[in-house]
Amino acid sequence: LDREKIATQTAGERLARGWRFQPPISKLYLELLAPTANDNASDLARLTRALKNQHYDNIDIDFSVIRNVAAIVREANWEVTATIVRNAACPRLIKLEPGDTRSHLYSLAFDIGTTAVRGQLLDLNKGRILSQTIDYNGQISFGADVISRIVQCQKPDGRLNLQRAVVGTINTLIGRMTKETAITLASIDHIVIAANTVMIHLLLGLDPQHLRLSPYVPAAGAPPLVKARSLGIDVGEQVYCFTVPSVASYVGGDIVAGVVGTGIYQRPQVTLYLDIGTNGEIVAGNCDWLVTAAASAGPTFEGGGIKHGMLAISGAIEDFELLAYTAEPGITTIGHEKPKGICGSGLINIAAELLRNGLDGWEYVLVWAADSFSGQDIVITEVDLDNLIRAKAAIFAGCQTLLKSIGGNSNSIDEVIIAGTFGSRINIENAITIGLLPDLPRDKFIYIGNGSLLGARLCSFSNDMIADCFKVAALMTNIELSENNDFMENYVAALFLPHTNTRELFPSVKLGVEP
Amino acid sequence: LDREKIATQTAGERLARGWRFQPPISKLYLELLAPTANDNASDLARLTRALKNQHYDNIDIDFSVIRNVAAIVREANWEVTATIVRNAACPRLIKLEPGDTRSHLYSLAFDIGTTAVRGQLLDLNKGRILSQTIDYNGQISFGADVISRIVQCQKPDGRLNLQRAVVGTINTLIGRMTKETAITLASIDHIVIAANTVMIHLLLGLDPQHLRLSPYVPAAGAPPLVKARSLGIDVGEQVYCFTVPSVASYVGGDIVAGVVGTGIYQRPQVTLYLDIGTNGEIVAGNCDWLVTAAASAGPTFEGGGIKHGMLAISGAIEDFELLAYTAEPGITTIGHEKPKGICGSGLINIAAELLRNGLDGWEYVLVWAADSFSGQDIVITEVDLDNLIRAKAAIFAGCQTLLKSIGGNSNSIDEVIIAGTFGSRINIENAITIGLLPDLPRDKFIYIGNGSLLGARLCSFSNDMIADCFKVAALMTNIELSENNDFMENYVAALFLPHTNTRELFPSVKLGVEP
Repeated sequence: LDREKIATQTAGERLARGWRFQPPISKLYLELLAPTANDNASDLARLTRALKNQHYDNIDIDFSVIRNVAAIVREANWEVTATIVRNAACPRLIKLEPGDTRSHLYSLAFDIGTTAVRGQLLDLNKGRILSQTIDYNGQISFGADVISRIVQCQKPDGRLNLQRAVVGTINTLIGRMTKETAITLASIDHIVIAANTVMIHLLLGLDPQHLRLSPYVPAAGAPPLVKARSLGIDVGEQVYCFTVPSVASYVGGDIVAGVVGTGIYQRPQVTLYLDIGTNGEIVAGNCDWLVTAAASAGPTFEGGGIKHGMLAISGAIEDFELLAYTAEPGITTIGHEKPKGICGSGLINIAAELLRNGLDGWEYVLVWAADSFSGQDIVITEVDLDNLIRAKAAIFAGCQTLLKSIGGNSNSIDEVIIAGTFGSRINIENAITIGLLPDLPRDKFIYIGNGSLLGARLCSFSNDMIADCFKVAALMTNIELSENNDFMENYVAALFLPHTNTRELFPSVKLGVEP
Repeated sequence: LDREKIATQTAGERLARGWRFQPPISKLYLELLAPTANDNASDLARLTRALKNQHYDNIDIDFSVIRNVAAIVREANWEVTATIVRNAACPRLIKLEPGDTRSHLYSLAFDIGTTAVRGQLLDLNKGRILSQTIDYNGQISFGADVISRIVQCQKPDGRLNLQRAVVGTINTLIGRMTKETAITLASIDHIVIAANTVMIHLLLGLDPQHLRLSPYVPAAGAPPLVKARSLGIDVGEQVYCFTVPSVASYVGGDIVAGVVGTGIYQRPQVTLYLDIGTNGEIVAGNCDWLVTAAASAGPTFEGGGIKHGMLAISGAIEDFELLAYTAEPGITTIGHEKPKGICGSGLINIAAELLRNGLDGWEYVLVWAADSFSGQDIVITEVDLDNLIRAKAAIFAGCQTLLKSIGGNSNSIDEVIIAGTFGSRINIENAITIGLLPDLPRDKFIYIGNGSLLGARLCSFSNDMIADCFKVAALMTNIELSENNDFMENYVAALFLPHTNTRELFPSVKLGVEP
């Protein structure tokens, strides 16, 4: 699999079809009639008359637009450019500039993850990414996971503090991208944000407490457009934020964005979409139906609960091979530095290699003390493997349950899309070997990188895609796994490497020792 | 004429016909479905679903509404009241309250005059005025007339200072009315403002400089809805201000409001509408056509340019009678206090009485020094009379010019409506005697008091009336008198008491000395 080639910035543009390149904001160049003694209608009337000629009959006008209308229309001799946002109930005039500024049409796309925030500065005329950047979500100091952040919100000023923290991160990213490209803040006209439901609540300052209480009701699944400035985002006063709608408390706009961005809902073929992190979000479906579930994988894939686990950063053991004849370990670390620990994708590769070679035991030493960064042995333990088994079982059982809910199984799948930063590091062969991913022909697997940001970008490029987000969110049926008997059965059966039913479910997996 | 009876608060409601009592804001009581395990859609989705059931399919939602949606819907067990504003391009949800609050629906109507601001607090359920109040426009310290205020705007912070001044007055009036009625600020949901074009520009912070430069182009004739808070008006964050659209730089929303409020545009009969102050705004028309003009009467009717002139306040000579046989003056003052000077309506009455009795000369003493407040004679001079003649000539010639522009004359008029504070003090008989008003049967004259505030109130009661404001503003043809030859001829001919052509134009006027 050529993961680098497929996971380019245009993966989504290639996958999703049938959308017009027609951004939610557009600029209209208008030549207004200069006033005469016989026609001294107001500046604003001249503007709305010109908009009517362009078939904008019923348009809302942001009051801020007219504050300096007299100066603007005269500055460029009655030739102006009007910026209109189209993804509201009515089109809305948000900005007026002297002269012809159509060549400048910029926007921002963000994915707000619980751990990291990713941003892209887009040129909406060319459909291009001009700059992209990433940073830790400033909310991390209030808790690593969504639950602890929801709890934090119940404290005095909790909601405000969490909102400010993530907006601070967003502003940092904006500052970095505008500096890099020399594009001014004032020329950015729109923002699209995709994120999980909790992150959206915290960004917008909504009360998230009911997200974690049965029956898990968000305050808003499809929040209305909101002025970016009113959230504290440092852009022009004309800018509205569109947040991609969510399906449920634990299936957010990030997943909807991924489904829309990859065009799953447009094809008759059945796709399995996996975004694996602390939560493994799973979607299965095609143009007729979509089911989704959040499988709680725990922190294993991010190195949590593993004796020498760590994030996939410099020094993490990512690949592993038992050398022939000697059975000595050969490891590869990220950045080729001295090994510090094991990341999630490394854990999968290690487990698969051990499994293929029939090695098991209480503890296996990957790196001897003399060779490690800390000067201590780096080992993988039985407990580590148990945690990995529980995590992969949750994901695999989630997939099975989803597919069974629509009367199918692994064989119903035409294509598997692996999304997310962790996903893009997974070795498919090894993930199948340990029973994390279904045993399908390898060419059915596609990596797309960050699906949420991909969707946010496509929504910035196409109002059709925004409309499709609402369609997809409404079409998706959420299955609560925690209350599902099928899931519990599938989960228990999956608590084995690769599976209790290897022969039927994982026929291609060859193990050193037959179970 | 029973001026007290006609000039009641319901004069407009009586005159204008065919409008539904359907305010631009309305409250909907909604019983939302409580969430269950099988239906855990978001709080906002439950709300929009309920709105859809009430036929609000395409509705914009102010973001502020959803900030506390989770708490509000649960506070009253999923029974809420939604407040919707209907006079935008799309209906817009502006407020959500727990429980059934339909019995509380309040709004404000304002007339912003150059000199004074008048406000009313309205109960939109009952169609009633709960409180009304008046105060000087805080902008007076920046200049008495509109021109000096426009000039003031060109100074640093000029626009901001003038905006703050009038908003300060508005806030004072709001404070007074809410205190008197014990209605909370938070329960006021809408504001309608009618004013002349300059006052609207200054209120909204728009650049007014082109209003006084040929070809007299306003920045905005029909400004969009604006959040009251963004102007500094001290009400809830949900409140939008609607400003009645204007026709031209010197024919403002106050006149449009008067025309709409009095239903002139609804009747086949031809009405002449006069709002006489520093500017005499004149409208003539019916359901098929409407013409309008602003005749510059100067400050005479407000006591300006008159030796002992003053505003119509306590101590002003308002009525005057030459006692039979002695020809001694008998005067009446406002408040029956010691005489201080002569107000505009007094001046008309004095001139008419002198004219009827054939008295003229260099100076006439109305009050001897011993009887006056200041201890000096109060006199009326030849210069005073000349100023009065010029002022009344401008108004009368304006009327003639307007009527001729549509091929008519005084005989085309079925009804004369006298609007404005000054207007409501005029003695019709005397105003005809001096040639200010056309010589028509006296029962054709109707006083309505402040027409602008009347229209603002009706717009608060009826969305139909708001729609009609736009129709009327578009239908009205403005005639610039300053550049009109007819007007100049009529003006010169009217520079006589009552007129150079008394026999034809003022047949009913009997003078002591035939001209």
